[in-house]
Amino acid sequence: MRRLLRRGIGFARFFSSHGGEAVLIDGKSVADDIKQVVAKDVALFKELVGRPPGLGVVFVGSRKASEIYVHNKTLACDETGISSSCTKLPEGASEEDVLASIRNYNEDPSVDGILVQLPIPKHLDEDRILSSISLEKDVDGCHPVNIGNLALKGNQPLFVPCTAKACLQLLLAKRVQLSGRYAVVIGCGNIAGLPISLLLQQHNATVTRVHALTKAPEDYTRKADIVISATGSPNLVRGNWLKQEAVVLDVGISHIQDPCSGELHLIGDVCIGEARKVASLISPVPGGVGPVTIAMLLQNTMLAAKLRHGFHQSKPESDAVK
Amino acid sequence: MRRLLRRGIGFARFFSSHGGEAVLIDGKSVADDIKQVVAKDVALFKELVGRPPGLGVVFVGSRKASEIYVHNKTLACDETGISSSCTKLPEGASEEDVLASIRNYNEDPSVDGILVQLPIPKHLDEDRILSSISLEKDVDGCHPVNIGNLALKGNQPLFVPCTAKACLQLLLAKRVQLSGRYAVVIGCGNIAGLPISLLLQQHNATVTRVHALTKAPEDYTRKADIVISATGSPNLVRGNWLKQEAVVLDVGISHIQDPCSGELHLIGDVCIGEARKVASLISPVPGGVGPVTIAMLLQNTMLAAKLRHGFHQSKPESDAVK
Repeated sequence: MRRLLRRGIGFARFFSSHGGEAVLIDGKSVADDIKQVVAKDVALFKELVGRPPGLGVVFVGSRKASEIYVHNKTLACDETGISSSCTKLPEGASEEDVLASIRNYNEDPSVDGILVQLPIPKHLDEDRILSSISLEKDVDGCHPVNIGNLALKGNQPLFVPCTAKACLQLLLAKRVQLSGRYAVVIGCGNIAGLPISLLLQQHNATVTRVHALTKAPEDYTRKADIVISATGSPNLVRGNWLKQEAVVLDVGISHIQDPCSGELHLIGDVCIGEARKVASLISPVPGGVGPVTIAMLLQNTMLAAKLRHGFHQSKPESDAVK
Repeated sequence: MRRLLRRGIGFARFFSSHGGEAVLIDGKSVADDIKQVVAKDVALFKELVGRPPGLGVVFVGSRKASEIYVHNKTLACDETGISSSCTKLPEGASEEDVLASIRNYNEDPSVDGILVQLPIPKHLDEDRILSSISLEKDVDGCHPVNIGNLALKGNQPLFVPCTAKACLQLLLAKRVQLSGRYAVVIGCGNIAGLPISLLLQQHNATVTRVHALTKAPEDYTRKADIVISATGSPNLVRGNWLKQEAVVLDVGISHIQDPCSGELHLIGDVCIGEARKVASLISPVPGGVGPVTIAMLLQNTMLAAKLRHGFHQSKPESDAVK
């Protein structure tokens, strides 16, 4: 057993062969551990600085799913003692309105981190909006400078995007070896697919990004040690898309509305019933990557507060995550 | 024939099956065409602004190969009428010295583009140095903001790094289709491998980056429609690493010194004798990607000059190259 533990990926194999089916990763439990640490840091920060770390959220429109995300994020802030405020703008808000909201948060000394809830309505220039966030408050890590530094070997972003950081956190928590292993990332969005692939590359995985125009994506995933899907296409990844003992992270979230109750149900990209028979480890939806992503937002906000007050070295992402 | 032309990659196939061996891409001829266009733009710019576009080069150390590159770049500037100056610093130069040279060029109104010849000595912080170049003068495209915008879908970098742009230029010149095709980039350096893979992804290729820690890189290259090697390992890519009819770009350059004459000879990453029997199109070393990379530096410098004087729209890389 000790030898298996040392071998990293062997750890996952051990569990899989033990139970016959893939182990489901309990993202909530990983997130709770992180939140506990953040809460302690928050309390200490408050004692030293006289105020809690602060997160400012800009939410444009009325997308139901985004509303739930924003609610969950502010709730998680409350849990850990981080103060949060949300500027809600209507669907038709002008770019100037959005930029003004960000400017307010940029200038507000009680706000350490700023999050623009994505996606934003199509008439707005996402690049211009995200680039207007002060680099030292870009806790979602989506500023081009942070993405550039995530891509460039030897550089270190101030903040790693939360979803990518969550995936890495889960892989590290489950002792999945990355260096030299083959990872396929499905989906090439800026929020998840891109930063995930860049982060895996920083950890010396061999990475292929497959997307909507890739012919036969299953030809790639079938060879992969690690498959991370972030498309939002329910049940896209079937059991026969996976190699035996693969590690699978499901980042895709689709909201299916119950026609009777109107309630939203979450389902992922991975056909979990089939995938469990093949893979060694799977993060489910809900309860997998999602809660850890929120925990990472709290961690980044805490980090931003520390950096602004000189409580942290200047290149923060060099330790656990990058 | 017309149908083959329309099919893009079929164009390459046509030549290959016609001649039996892969067609060698004549990079010099592609570069000459570009330089002619740049020279015309330079003349017009000079007439309108009263001075030629200017390139400032910072060269630290005495690496023989770098000396040749810098010489070739300034020579190409002369050819097209771009003025160039080179600040040469000794191997042991302090970071402050290098930053001061860049600051001078940043502030010099006659300098439109700045190039720091890479690699720089190891005691210098490459990130800090490259980040200090004014974004609007970063004609080598290595600033984290440019890399970030190259990575982010929907964003456009002010300048695409020259080697990546040269590869794309050659592929476009030879009508090689990228969208939906499988490309393997060997080498994950910041100057070539990284921006090449990001640029191919922007053009909807499915891309794998293989590197020193990849197990059996040939398993990936053997499936690839396009193989681009940028490692500097002579003859790394053998004939049996390639799929029939693959398109191969050789970006790696190794300098082999003749023990008698002391002269430097250039050889690439690709074992060209073997590869020609399998591939459909190959860019050789020398005479392939190299001359086009220099032409791209001139093009970027011209573009920087135009942007500074408002002769070009603000998002310049949206047309031919990205």
